[in-house]
Amino acid sequence: MTGPDGGQPAPFRRADFDVLRTITTRWEDEDVYGHVNNVVYYSFFDTAVNGHLIDATGTDIRRLDAVGLVAETQCEFLRELAFPDDVQAGLAVTRIGTSSIVYRIGLFQGQSPEPAAIGRFVHVYVDAATRVVTPIPEAVRAAVSPLLVEPDATTSGSA
Amino acid sequence: MTGPDGGQPAPFRRADFDVLRTITTRWEDEDVYGHVNNVVYYSFFDTAVNGHLIDATGTDIRRLDAVGLVAETQCEFLRELAFPDDVQAGLAVTRIGTSSIVYRIGLFQGQSPEPAAIGRFVHVYVDAATRVVTPIPEAVRAAVSPLLVEPDATTSGSA
Amino acid sequence: MTGPDGGQPAPFRRADFDVLRTITTRWEDEDVYGHVNNVVYYSFFDTAVNGHLIDATGTDIRRLDAVGLVAETQCEFLRELAFPDDVQAGLAVTRIGTSSIVYRIGLFQGQSPEPAAIGRFVHVYVDAATRVVTPIPEAVRAAVSPLLVEPDATTSGSA
Amino acid sequence: MTGPDGGQPAPFRRADFDVLRTITTRWEDEDVYGHVNNVVYYSFFDTAVNGHLIDATGTDIRRLDAVGLVAETQCEFLRELAFPDDVQAGLAVTRIGTSSIVYRIGLFQGQSPEPAAIGRFVHVYVDAATRVVTPIPEAVRAAVSPLLVEPDATTSGSA
Repeated sequence: MTGPDGGQPAPFRRADFDVLRTITTRWEDEDVYGHVNNVVYYSFFDTAVNGHLIDATGTDIRRLDAVGLVAETQCEFLRELAFPDDVQAGLAVTRIGTSSIVYRIGLFQGQSPEPAAIGRFVHVYVDAATRVVTPIPEAVRAAVSPLLVEPDATTSGSA
Repeated sequence: MTGPDGGQPAPFRRADFDVLRTITTRWEDEDVYGHVNNVVYYSFFDTAVNGHLIDATGTDIRRLDAVGLVAETQCEFLRELAFPDDVQAGLAVTRIGTSSIVYRIGLFQGQSPEPAAIGRFVHVYVDAATRVVTPIPEAVRAAVSPLLVEPDATTSGSA
Repeated sequence: MTGPDGGQPAPFRRADFDVLRTITTRWEDEDVYGHVNNVVYYSFFDTAVNGHLIDATGTDIRRLDAVGLVAETQCEFLRELAFPDDVQAGLAVTRIGTSSIVYRIGLFQGQSPEPAAIGRFVHVYVDAATRVVTPIPEAVRAAVSPLLVEPDATTSGSA
Repeated sequence: MTGPDGGQPAPFRRADFDVLRTITTRWEDEDVYGHVNNVVYYSFFDTAVNGHLIDATGTDIRRLDAVGLVAETQCEFLRELAFPDDVQAGLAVTRIGTSSIVYRIGLFQGQSPEPAAIGRFVHVYVDAATRVVTPIPEAVRAAVSPLLVEPDATTSGSA
């Protein structure tokens, strides 16, 4: 595995993630090539991040005054995923800015310690009504701070 | 709840289903009205039926000589479903024909014994290569026979 | 084609629909069997109905005081649909009640006058805030009235 | 707009794309925030690339001996997309290797020359049976060669 810059292999394995969330696969997830379609991996990212935020804050984050909109995502597809086995989504945070949070996500299936995919997911917080960029809500900041790890070479600045 | 014929309430509760399968919801499942979109319920049906068939037969049913194509589905939406709670899909079989199987599916969320939706799902078996209607594979027939219950008034004949 | 009651063939062809809306298919729509997955047909129904309502009312119906929630849907799958050809969704209305509208939808692909699927789609209007059943908004009623046709034998009462 | 490296604005506008493909949005595409969910943008990428390949080659690329699997994708979300307007997906190719093709995709809606999103989409060709990396089929290479543009700073090497 190489990063988007063609750099060093990124050694992210299942044990590197403190938070692992289980997501069930769906029949519909598989495409004509008999594996989970690439688009669906991003649904796993979206679900893991928002599900963790709801659980860790104890708050329905959709109803806060500031909501996280997705500014950038990226995924490297390393192994196929298949229905019907569950997927484990590992979550880490590589940057917490004033208004943005950068997540690293690893997807795993079966017993393998190696990821099927490694993703990057950037939330930027905006005012729910005006959609103007605004600071990360305190409840969210507190929830993600324990997930902060060293950034990797492919993680660069966002707002 | 009334059936498609506007008839009697159908008394299908969680305890009426011998098989219950857990499906995790996804952030993307919710639509602009803040609840799981109606289309997604059918993905739960599809996933519950095929997942059970794979588990109960111990076979990757997609690679059999005869595969089940969906001939008809129907759903009554009774209560809203929401992310991030899990959904339980209850499975029963109301008819086993020569080439077709009619399933009843109940979707449940939280502790409620009452369904959020009751669905009907009809598989017709066809030859995987020619797509000509063909008898139900023995492994599948054996897997679904224990789920057979009395049909309800809304379940009518299909091939 | 037989109705859900195993009755007479339903003679709904492309020319039977006054409104036809074009929907592009997506690569992801196809499943492991190499055809558009059954779940996606309901996304076509949802899109055709709501898209027509927005166009015909000239109003963003999502922001009205009363919104249409889906109470029941049903689909008979008659022919396969495939990517990348467009789908035409034909729309008719078989019943307009005080609070509910029943649509008949036909899906067509290529030059065939025969439908790939015939669906039933029931909207019940509720107060957007309280979700209590409420009369159909006048703008919506005016938009759907021209689509009213004779109900077929499979269309029965809903609220 | 800044690239993943936080660098210079990328000046990709509608007129910069020689190929523009129309994709209809779906009601289900919108999420709880009332805009097209981030995951769906990748379905637009997938659909634009594969649809163009099918049209430009005149071949059902899914049945070739070598098929393109997705190795990496990335998206910057710049403006919201909404139902029911159509999306235009602009296609360019920034690199053609022995076995891989890197696409740049711009998504546009309404009359704006500015993109709602800029994406990167990497196909790696594999033998359809063994999934071993293999050269790009000639028909595909011929189809994408006219789309080749100067790579941007964010496009780096892949196989």
